[in-house]
Amino acid sequence: MRPINIALIGLGTVGCGVYQTLHIHQQRLEKLVGAPINISTIIIEHPDKHQKIAAKTNVTTDVNTVLNNPEIDVVFEAIVGKEPAFSLLRKCIQAKKHVITSNKEMFATHGDELKNLASRYNVRIGYDATTAGGIPIIQTIQQLLKANQIQYVQAILNGTTNFILSAMREKNITFSSALDEAQNWGYAESNPENDIDGFDAFYKLMILSDLIFEKQPDIEHVTRVGIRNTTEESIQALQTEGKRLKHIAKIGHDAAGNLTASVELEAVSKEHPLYAVEGVNNAIHIKGDIVGDLTFTGPGAGSFPTASAMIEDFCILFKKERAPIAIG
Amino acid sequence: MRPINIALIGLGTVGCGVYQTLHIHQQRLEKLVGAPINISTIIIEHPDKHQKIAAKTNVTTDVNTVLNNPEIDVVFEAIVGKEPAFSLLRKCIQAKKHVITSNKEMFATHGDELKNLASRYNVRIGYDATTAGGIPIIQTIQQLLKANQIQYVQAILNGTTNFILSAMREKNITFSSALDEAQNWGYAESNPENDIDGFDAFYKLMILSDLIFEKQPDIEHVTRVGIRNTTEESIQALQTEGKRLKHIAKIGHDAAGNLTASVELEAVSKEHPLYAVEGVNNAIHIKGDIVGDLTFTGPGAGSFPTASAMIEDFCILFKKERAPIAIG
Repeated sequence: MRPINIALIGLGTVGCGVYQTLHIHQQRLEKLVGAPINISTIIIEHPDKHQKIAAKTNVTTDVNTVLNNPEIDVVFEAIVGKEPAFSLLRKCIQAKKHVITSNKEMFATHGDELKNLASRYNVRIGYDATTAGGIPIIQTIQQLLKANQIQYVQAILNGTTNFILSAMREKNITFSSALDEAQNWGYAESNPENDIDGFDAFYKLMILSDLIFEKQPDIEHVTRVGIRNTTEESIQALQTEGKRLKHIAKIGHDAAGNLTASVELEAVSKEHPLYAVEGVNNAIHIKGDIVGDLTFTGPGAGSFPTASAMIEDFCILFKKERAPIAIG
Repeated sequence: MRPINIALIGLGTVGCGVYQTLHIHQQRLEKLVGAPINISTIIIEHPDKHQKIAAKTNVTTDVNTVLNNPEIDVVFEAIVGKEPAFSLLRKCIQAKKHVITSNKEMFATHGDELKNLASRYNVRIGYDATTAGGIPIIQTIQQLLKANQIQYVQAILNGTTNFILSAMREKNITFSSALDEAQNWGYAESNPENDIDGFDAFYKLMILSDLIFEKQPDIEHVTRVGIRNTTEESIQALQTEGKRLKHIAKIGHDAAGNLTASVELEAVSKEHPLYAVEGVNNAIHIKGDIVGDLTFTGPGAGSFPTASAMIEDFCILFKKERAPIAIG
């Protein structure tokens, strides 16, 4: 039987997680998709750096080996930044390949364009890994909450800032000590501004906004405040009131009906659905107009949780023809 | 265009929620399923009791009006107890009708048989409403966590017992006062044993067991303990240790590899994923072997949350041919 041929762009934390997961669980995945799975090509900047790739896999810097290979069915993109990711995925879609991405900054900016392009070329895009890591929030909203209209979202979408705020409260340490700790644990980049200034959470929020409200808010209706000026004193003071400081991303509508979004610090009490979300976890709280309040909590980042989201997208993509008998 | 004709069995709390939701959101739902929706027939014990049903809907006690009507496409079953629900759904499936049920006791006992029957008659079964009310846990496991093998489940699956335990702790009241309060709020039946002795949670756990492990544990590997002997003193004592008493349903494997299940009281500390689940909420914590720990929290019962689960099943059932371009 013809295998499903996979190309992987990027072999960092997420890319390695995808590569390893495809290998470790190959038999299980082949059973699910009903075909052999072959990692045909890996595109990376420095092929010489990676010795542990199976010999049958072509490791190259040249994306044309993917674009010009009609045998490749799907491309996993696991790099960071808008470019070259966007240009690469656009070419992959135009070459009639399904794409699965974990690239939040790129998808927050160009997601709609890629969705339209995919529709035109009759291929599919998986992007659950862009938002809240291993929590299947994109699929849940897109497939399981169709009848519900989601009225608002409030979420912890960045594990690094949540880890720092948790550590500052629990250990009564300064922001910079907590940041050091996050960096030592590998939870924060050496240049942490993307996380601590709220950009990463904002990107994920915009992806949710496109999905739920089919647009992004106008810039004058968006607030983005980071956590770097947070003092341990302020956190301890809130602690004595039974409150916790959380870095919360929200989308909803203001009184005038404008779509609004914010990423900012909020002091929440123990009744708040995000109060108990600690450490590197993410959580998304949504209100559906039929079901009411739902909260989804889980690992917001990391090699395997993010790989899990991409692999689940892969299974859905290649399972889509065979609907299970029991739909519930 | 030919409408999708619906029959509804039972017009209690859940049945009324389904009926009202189908009416309130009719346009939205028709857009989703791409066809007009018509509530053709309602089967209830006492048709005279219900005056508020649209005149075009046939309200009757006679299930044969559904079985003998080839125009009826799908049957929503929202009654309680194994019988007559099981016999009715079996006949509906044999009459080639899709079925959507919220009946946990019946499905915990006869779910497998109905799934097999549905497969033979090429119809589909939606049963997300049987477990954890509005939380789409069945669909999530079945559709969004295929690549992951779920290693264990621990969950709060009964809102009544969780409400009682929360009230006993917060207000320092006795079990019987808390039960009275639950009954006054409509969170507990006049005969509460199904909830407080853990039967309801056990049924839901067995449905999850069938779904995740494709079997139910042998009876000698099952523990079921209710909450009626819980004292406020024990709860307050735990409170002083920073612990909460939760009624937790678990499935996993013992050291010998036997599938085990339990519904029992457990004292959990604030790091526990179910510690913060209060009041009538339900929560399901699962461990996937790729993604890690995920927790899903939401309304575990109630007219509209349960209706939401049934209506979402309905949308999935009748949307299944049209896959969205963006799969993520």
